[in-house]
Amino acid sequence: MSQIALTRFIGEWLPPIEAEMRSLLDNNEEAVGALYGMLRYHMGWANTRFDAELAPAGKRLRPIFCLLACAEVGGTVETAVPAAAALELLHNFSLIHDDIEDGDEQRRHRATLWKVWGVPQAINAGDSLFAIAFAAMQRLHDRGLSAEATLAALRVFTQMCIALTEGQHLDMGFEERDDVTVPEYLRMIQGKTGALVGASVAIGAIVGGVEAEQSEALWRYGQAVGLAFQVQDDVLGIWGDPAQTGKAAGNDVLRRKKSLPMLYALNHAATGARLAALLAAADFGPARLDDALALLDEAGARTYAEAQVQRLHDNAMAALQEALGARAAHSPLRTLAESLLNRTR
Amino acid sequence: MSQIALTRFIGEWLPPIEAEMRSLLDNNEEAVGALYGMLRYHMGWANTRFDAELAPAGKRLRPIFCLLACAEVGGTVETAVPAAAALELLHNFSLIHDDIEDGDEQRRHRATLWKVWGVPQAINAGDSLFAIAFAAMQRLHDRGLSAEATLAALRVFTQMCIALTEGQHLDMGFEERDDVTVPEYLRMIQGKTGALVGASVAIGAIVGGVEAEQSEALWRYGQAVGLAFQVQDDVLGIWGDPAQTGKAAGNDVLRRKKSLPMLYALNHAATGARLAALLAAADFGPARLDDALALLDEAGARTYAEAQVQRLHDNAMAALQEALGARAAHSPLRTLAESLLNRTR
Repeated sequence: MSQIALTRFIGEWLPPIEAEMRSLLDNNEEAVGALYGMLRYHMGWANTRFDAELAPAGKRLRPIFCLLACAEVGGTVETAVPAAAALELLHNFSLIHDDIEDGDEQRRHRATLWKVWGVPQAINAGDSLFAIAFAAMQRLHDRGLSAEATLAALRVFTQMCIALTEGQHLDMGFEERDDVTVPEYLRMIQGKTGALVGASVAIGAIVGGVEAEQSEALWRYGQAVGLAFQVQDDVLGIWGDPAQTGKAAGNDVLRRKKSLPMLYALNHAATGARLAALLAAADFGPARLDDALALLDEAGARTYAEAQVQRLHDNAMAALQEALGARAAHSPLRTLAESLLNRTR
Repeated sequence: MSQIALTRFIGEWLPPIEAEMRSLLDNNEEAVGALYGMLRYHMGWANTRFDAELAPAGKRLRPIFCLLACAEVGGTVETAVPAAAALELLHNFSLIHDDIEDGDEQRRHRATLWKVWGVPQAINAGDSLFAIAFAAMQRLHDRGLSAEATLAALRVFTQMCIALTEGQHLDMGFEERDDVTVPEYLRMIQGKTGALVGASVAIGAIVGGVEAEQSEALWRYGQAVGLAFQVQDDVLGIWGDPAQTGKAAGNDVLRRKKSLPMLYALNHAATGARLAALLAAADFGPARLDDALALLDEAGARTYAEAQVQRLHDNAMAALQEALGARAAHSPLRTLAESLLNRTR
């Protein structure tokens, strides 16, 4: 599939995914109107007074992976739309809670849910979206998918939810440690990013008619794509073009974020102690960014991270080949993975 | 079923429920050991260093309702154990998040999870338990329940989760309002307590072989028992014997808790304004408890609340009769409801 055909596929299927998500957050009971209003606000469909608006939304990457996988194994894409909606809602549930846990006040240039309505209501609104995502998955059976296949998809979905909380647990723990290793980091993003993309692809394949066991190679493909995506994000977070990423140059260095390049340099015999001292210095800020970037260079952190992205991408392609054989070369799943790898923002 | 037979049933089935829950929280991966340790701490199985201990746990009421309903419709109780575990884990997830939302520092005489490990980790631990409860439900199919019936039970479970978050949303909103009405209060506890007991009974019946549609009367029975239980709790929270409840006399009045008797007196033409003024007074405390209790008496708040308990109990018995016919009179579900109604703590 060409990039153009992929873009057409995305353009065709985004509206039904949005419609499915909206129908799941439709609730006319006045007593609980504010709860659903908060969720619509988070999704970008309403302002803080719950009037309709259309704010910039996420990329809806996970639903697209799901529908592409369904199409790729010969399934009816329409059937998978509730699963696509469930994956995006679940992703958004995790964003609501992550924003509270990280104390982030802004998301997509708007105040976060907890910032507007307070932490208690935001925790509960996230829980609500979590439950609604499961309700979305159960719609698969209403749309004609067998009970067996629906349960198989639900099982992958549930294990993904558990993996997500494990990843988030590790991520929060890292904030308080200065001895995090590269393998620990990879285990963390396996939960936070790998699991969700892996499950999106596996669920799409199961809905498309593949037995749960046979979806395993596609799951590994998605997992590796998710990891590559995250490490690429780490590279862009330091060396991305501010004009493209919309973030300050060296943003993640200034935030002392324990991303892969940073951990690599912190664990490097030649640069570790000096970088740690620099980041810990009371006067560390934009004026000393170049010193930090020089240490990352000395460690070869960018080269290392980019090699990791390539390795993960190669793993993804090998798994895709395993799943699809010769068709892998022309698969839209390959096109999508390449376009994520080559992105600049 | 007599009270003795009921006690025997509970004694027989609590250990398998506990074993099922423990197996769901078993995770040997060292990296995420602390996450599962926090959950075992919350369940009363470990101390804060994650060493095994056995702290007082909850009554496990919801699992017992589930297993009794399964037995009552002629099902194999063993099959329903994963559902019973799921209901108790889900209840505990909601306690973890409620404790954060309400700022409660103690539960069952121990520090709450957030108090020990902080709010971010506690939010995430709750999310983890939420997901694990869904994994528990999916075990029903592994134990031989058909995929169709497992999905039907999951559907009731999911709708209950959504109802719970609606109830919690209302409950938190009430804290900030001084014009909450009795119908609004009943709508709130329908979500917070009614939905969970209703679902426990309905899921037990579905696992026991009843079609989802036919479980409706049993669901209404559970819902009414849950509501009666909550209103009875409200009565005990004000007029319960401190020696029995373990709480101070007039505890809920001193906490200004918007329970049913309080709302009734606050909405009463003769007492509302005076009670509101008293509760709002800067010097309101134990010394003025008798004044508040006198106003509750004047409004007839206790008589009203006790009549509501009786009405809800009658509704429960009518629904049970509808579901079971003549067998209702000797059903353990009747025995359990009566014992909850007549409790003093």
